Amino acid sequence: MSANISIFDTTLRDGTQGEGISLSADDKLKIAQKLDALGVHYIEGGNPGSNSKDIEFFQRVKSLNLSARITAFGSTRRKNSAAEHDASLLRIVESGVPAATLVGKAWDFHVHTALQTTLEENLAMIYDSFAFLKRSGMEAMYDAEHFFDGYKNNPEYALAALRKAQDAGADWLVLCDTNGGTLPGEIHEIVSRVRSELTAEIGIHTHNDCELAVANTLAAVQAGARQVQGTINGYGERCGNANLCSIIPNLQLKLGYDCLPEERLRTLTNTARYISEIANVHMPVGQAYVGNAAFAHKGGIHVSAIMKDSKTYEHIQPELVGNKQRILVSELAGQSNIISKAVELGLDVNANNEKTKQIIDQIKELEHQGYQFEGADASLELLLREAFTDMKEIFTVESFKMHVEKTNAGMISEAIVKINVDGQQVYTAAEGNGPVNALDNALRKALVQFYPKIEQFHLSDYKVRVIDEKDATAAKVRVLVESTGLDNTWSTVGVSSNVIEASWEALLGSIRYALLSMDKVESGVIDTQERLGLINH
Amino acid sequence: MSANISIFDTTLRDGTQGEGISLSADDKLKIAQKLDALGVHYIEGGNPGSNSKDIEFFQRVKSLNLSARITAFGSTRRKNSAAEHDASLLRIVESGVPAATLVGKAWDFHVHTALQTTLEENLAMIYDSFAFLKRSGMEAMYDAEHFFDGYKNNPEYALAALRKAQDAGADWLVLCDTNGGTLPGEIHEIVSRVRSELTAEIGIHTHNDCELAVANTLAAVQAGARQVQGTINGYGERCGNANLCSIIPNLQLKLGYDCLPEERLRTLTNTARYISEIANVHMPVGQAYVGNAAFAHKGGIHVSAIMKDSKTYEHIQPELVGNKQRILVSELAGQSNIISKAVELGLDVNANNEKTKQIIDQIKELEHQGYQFEGADASLELLLREAFTDMKEIFTVESFKMHVEKTNAGMISEAIVKINVDGQQVYTAAEGNGPVNALDNALRKALVQFYPKIEQFHLSDYKVRVIDEKDATAAKVRVLVESTGLDNTWSTVGVSSNVIEASWEALLGSIRYALLSMDKVESGVIDTQERLGLINH
Repeated sequence: MSANISIFDTTLRDGTQGEGISLSADDKLKIAQKLDALGVHYIEGGNPGSNSKDIEFFQRVKSLNLSARITAFGSTRRKNSAAEHDASLLRIVESGVPAATLVGKAWDFHVHTALQTTLEENLAMIYDSFAFLKRSGMEAMYDAEHFFDGYKNNPEYALAALRKAQDAGADWLVLCDTNGGTLPGEIHEIVSRVRSELTAEIGIHTHNDCELAVANTLAAVQAGARQVQGTINGYGERCGNANLCSIIPNLQLKLGYDCLPEERLRTLTNTARYISEIANVHMPVGQAYVGNAAFAHKGGIHVSAIMKDSKTYEHIQPELVGNKQRILVSELAGQSNIISKAVELGLDVNANNEKTKQIIDQIKELEHQGYQFEGADASLELLLREAFTDMKEIFTVESFKMHVEKTNAGMISEAIVKINVDGQQVYTAAEGNGPVNALDNALRKALVQFYPKIEQFHLSDYKVRVIDEKDATAAKVRVLVESTGLDNTWSTVGVSSNVIEASWEALLGSIRYALLSMDKVESGVIDTQERLGLINH
Repeated sequence: MSANISIFDTTLRDGTQGEGISLSADDKLKIAQKLDALGVHYIEGGNPGSNSKDIEFFQRVKSLNLSARITAFGSTRRKNSAAEHDASLLRIVESGVPAATLVGKAWDFHVHTALQTTLEENLAMIYDSFAFLKRSGMEAMYDAEHFFDGYKNNPEYALAALRKAQDAGADWLVLCDTNGGTLPGEIHEIVSRVRSELTAEIGIHTHNDCELAVANTLAAVQAGARQVQGTINGYGERCGNANLCSIIPNLQLKLGYDCLPEERLRTLTNTARYISEIANVHMPVGQAYVGNAAFAHKGGIHVSAIMKDSKTYEHIQPELVGNKQRILVSELAGQSNIISKAVELGLDVNANNEKTKQIIDQIKELEHQGYQFEGADASLELLLREAFTDMKEIFTVESFKMHVEKTNAGMISEAIVKINVDGQQVYTAAEGNGPVNALDNALRKALVQFYPKIEQFHLSDYKVRVIDEKDATAAKVRVLVESTGLDNTWSTVGVSSNVIEASWEALLGSIRYALLSMDKVESGVIDTQERLGLINH
């Protein structure tokens, strides 16, 4: 019961099949780093021949020197051809990754209907493709597509497909419930049969079409599977892939399997939220283990029992997965996080200090309004520095105006800003390629004479998220701005029901943060440049 | 295997414990009618003594003459008192409903820690309360709180609690996994033991804290439970209750149990979406069975197989639960997606047609510019209808202007639009709670005199995504707008380097789509209203 389970993440490949998910090469590299920090064993990057984003990913990921094995995805060779001349297989080998997963048919119906070839030719396609990968020195995994549907229709053929891959040297036989229609009892029975018939290691790959992907994965592991394929937050086609954020804690905390080092498991919630920000997908508050409401208790009987012993209404300690208890009536959570963040920044805080209590209240109030500091370290740091150090005000804003006009001649965006720098008023205007760009240009134009180094950094990402969907276009939005330069990257946040105001707030934070870091205008506790390194992400 | 399962819906009681869910008495009555039409057997309305909304609900629900049994919820009597004098039990009896559910402790730890009484007194509380309900002529159900945690800690005490309720005449023993921490294997084993030790009917009530509530419910039914408690869309405290929208089709279509008449099951998707609208909670696109993406196909290979036989990538026929197949058009997909989408819309296309080639090229070019149609069905449909039918232009835009100003007094957002409707120029302005809201308000103000039905739909979601991050605030953004009303939900897309322009484009698309659907202004291939039915999602 204490077997090791290999965690195979396919967020970057199967996860991107999810509706509304589209990741740039930069996004993919950021997510790969985060997954590596979580400690997953395999990261499936994509198909190295399918599009320019994936090609760029495979080229650039090498320089990150990740501990996780990067794997490439493809199919068994085309029918009636040679693996050695299959363009897609050649690109996988040439991509230079140490491991690859090939999907191949295991359901006779699919061989006839979708592939339109003979059962024998499909088996040859499997054998030839894995023999080729193994001759190329790679770790090789066979994604046995529709394995369970295939087994139910023709068990001997489904097993024959696995055997071909095993005979060709495949290291893993990954049983896929591609359509997501299989039930846990069937999964357990079929995986047990496979375990008794074959010797290669078994993996499991499920989909959530019956809301059973997590249960199906557990059933397969209990029947002998030792690799689990899934995605962060369950992203994936249709109803999604098996959700690693639920599977990992279930396997490790409930069933005693080893998936991740204990201290890495404590970063699970942060990982899930970070990736949902990058993917720009709203995370359900009620998501198991990592959701914002996963350990939230409404007032009344539950809360009073929780105060006596949290075990009364919590199935695990939330900290084990990096989440926290929330009492929706009187918030007591978060304080320790804020203090530990301030300590990390070298600020002189402790929980009994009056100033500490004030800043904790202020941050809670901001979070209540919709701010989120998990993806905006620089904004949090500005707040903490304002509270605990003698921070100089670099500039103050008197007003700004924005005009956007669409005529037959095209779009015009113009911003007018009035700010004060060192007692001097600056009143200027600029155009831009959109309103936020115009505001950024005008601000920079006003500041460059005082801070020429402002030209050494630029905005590198801009995200908008509706916080409260009830009022749609009148709802509050959260803007995240990421800036890059000065050998660093930092993020700031703004919240308003007005997207322009929220953008403005995040822009101001970004520039203030950078100028403070450059000029060391604070009389802070530790060196700013050094600290900028700390918050590098 | 063809046993009847009683469906007990607690959306109106346990469902309202979910974060952000708040239902008025009117909302509750509407939902009760919808649940009754679906054919559930029990509708738990709330606690008739707890608040005025629930009192009003129980008074008014009688006149609806529903077929489902309305049930009231409460607790076993207070410790050291008589059931006959328990105010809460009296209110349940007085509410006039035919059935009631009482929650009572089954975990010795909770008796000591939360209830702070003796094990014997808790058993007496159970016995007395059920004897009282039965003397009052009601059907009585015992919600055995924390039954599984209790059983694991002290099996004999947990069983003794059930036995007391049974001895007092309780009709159902409902085993609750209150904290949601139990796994399917444990559930099966424990329910089997209960089934062998007791004679009363067994129910199951699970929570989703391990993302296993559906699997746990199935395991209990397979071990002999004959009542299933859950909520529509899985609403409920923390991670939610067991989701009836997944459980019912799993039990009925996969395991052969009888839950609902076949034709009622076909209203499941509509019921789920209707209730999500009333509850004002955004429905995840990937929700199993009933989600908008539950039968949506994106990968090119998948789509070409689906065209040959939909069984290749669908675990059930979507129509069985009232959902439908959708073909997503995306960068990962090929020409076959676009053609099958057009066929789905009833348009006269084929791959060799010159017009078909043109529209495919146009869509590819738009995707290259950053459009994404997989989340914007309505925009895609407008494009296809423009290409293949004689679509009338409802209105044209001459110009618009936007002002946003921040002063010490606050933010002002104002939009001015000049449009042409049927040869008439309309020039008007409106303020808003942010620039997009101002634009939406101004557009609607200009159109409402021509199309009063514009008030019957509203924007329900708004998303912004930076497409190419290299240029940050000068980069292109993609805006997705979702609108709801007229018994439908539809999404449109806009792309521009200017967030205001992209929002404007998506807003225009949304309104054009709705007005076209309402007024049948096209001379298209099939009737528009009918098509709205087809594309209902």
